[in-house]
Amino acid sequence: MKIRKALITLADPNQSTLPLQTLIDRKGDRKPALELILDEAASAGIEEIILIVCPADIEPYKKAAGKHRESLRFLEQESPAGYANAILLAKDAIGDEPFLHLVGDHLCVSNRSISCAQQLVKVAEQSQSSVSGVQATRENLITSFGAVGGRLEGRESGLYRVDTVLEKPTPTEAELSLLVPGLRAGFYLCFFGIHVLSPTIFEILESTTRSNERGARSLSLALQKLAEKEKVLALEIHGDRFDIGSEYGIFFAQLALALSGEDRDKVMSGLLELVAQKVKS
Amino acid sequence: MKIRKALITLADPNQSTLPLQTLIDRKGDRKPALELILDEAASAGIEEIILIVCPADIEPYKKAAGKHRESLRFLEQESPAGYANAILLAKDAIGDEPFLHLVGDHLCVSNRSISCAQQLVKVAEQSQSSVSGVQATRENLITSFGAVGGRLEGRESGLYRVDTVLEKPTPTEAELSLLVPGLRAGFYLCFFGIHVLSPTIFEILESTTRSNERGARSLSLALQKLAEKEKVLALEIHGDRFDIGSEYGIFFAQLALALSGEDRDKVMSGLLELVAQKVKS
Repeated sequence: MKIRKALITLADPNQSTLPLQTLIDRKGDRKPALELILDEAASAGIEEIILIVCPADIEPYKKAAGKHRESLRFLEQESPAGYANAILLAKDAIGDEPFLHLVGDHLCVSNRSISCAQQLVKVAEQSQSSVSGVQATRENLITSFGAVGGRLEGRESGLYRVDTVLEKPTPTEAELSLLVPGLRAGFYLCFFGIHVLSPTIFEILESTTRSNERGARSLSLALQKLAEKEKVLALEIHGDRFDIGSEYGIFFAQLALALSGEDRDKVMSGLLELVAQKVKS
Repeated sequence: MKIRKALITLADPNQSTLPLQTLIDRKGDRKPALELILDEAASAGIEEIILIVCPADIEPYKKAAGKHRESLRFLEQESPAGYANAILLAKDAIGDEPFLHLVGDHLCVSNRSISCAQQLVKVAEQSQSSVSGVQATRENLITSFGAVGGRLEGRESGLYRVDTVLEKPTPTEAELSLLVPGLRAGFYLCFFGIHVLSPTIFEILESTTRSNERGARSLSLALQKLAEKEKVLALEIHGDRFDIGSEYGIFFAQLALALSGEDRDKVMSGLLELVAQKVKS
């Protein structure tokens, strides 16, 4: 089944100006972060993009959407009620089909000729199942992320069948439940921030968002329950993700875009010039 | 005479989101570009800051001003009428005293313990005259800037008495009129984007903005006429200026801030990691 719809969550009122920060993409075009995220979704063949936003942000985000403006549908989250709740708001707009899910405070920069979202959607369409993008992450960093445990799916490297999902595990919990054959010691599979989800996730979210279980406000608990009901895969994405809400996140996202794009030589040269000068001074 | 007021021009409607782009300052605090520019003015002892803006930008700029909000006075430029015209709008608000002038699309990063604006204001207060910040600039770049010619003032290096000001000179014009003793061959003194101006500039702007002479829409023609009437100095600023409206301007401004601030090691390490990875991939 073709993935036609995408859901992007952008409703954190503390981060409302993030999608409006401008960057220069790999082709050298200046655009808001929001347009880069929408480019990512569109690159994977998405036709309709549902955005969960604070009511006050609809107008500035429409302006920042560039050429994607006509493909957007805005849904309002009136007051902050958590990430899982934001996803659930899209239930009727998504309907009974799988969808791509991206978060509005992350930028992906692929290391391959196809985008990160394309890598994910390709596997989801082939396998007819939910797939979470993941990245092998050093043990000392896993307490900031959702993480999965599982086993290799088929003979392809980098694709796993998920059996356990934990939100921000401690290293001890990770060692007990999230060991994955084939990964380097001390590394775990953490979420990359992009998923393809089966519509079953909405039924599950309706009950988990009412519970007080660990991870109930994140997506992790619902994904754990989804993996108990249906096949959920995890795909190691060839690329980097940048949390643009974090310190220097935008700076490093811009650097990664520039170094993998057409302005590589220009930026590398300016970079070395400035570094040399600052080392001297 | 103490410099108490500053004037910042921000009325280009094509650049209205620039001051809202966020960066991390040398101390590691995240703030909008506007707040960094206001910090620069405040560092030089300025008590009142007059901003020339498009009417629609007043509210977002107030929000972005951070702790400087109470020191601001907004004046509206209803429609784009040039840079010189924007300065003239501040005539009554400035009154009969010298003032610091900064542009809203530039960020300064000092190489010294005092800020770029402080370097300039110190010399202006000591010399009781107008002083333009300048930077020795390679011949091939001068066609983008205003540039000055003159002679060394006193025995201090880096301080010049201005006799000629040209807006975006050709290399031939520069060679004829802007040679400055003591500069390396092929280098000219171009504006850094910060000035301390005597209030006489307003009388002059009233006539130059009505003329069609070269540079009449910029500040250059008025500065030329000011230098004919009064002492105008040019000070080589120890620091870098970044045009954040230009390609990668914000990126390099962020890099310069980070490399000269408290996050230097963290950013240098992330930089090398990413560069090494991108060179490999």
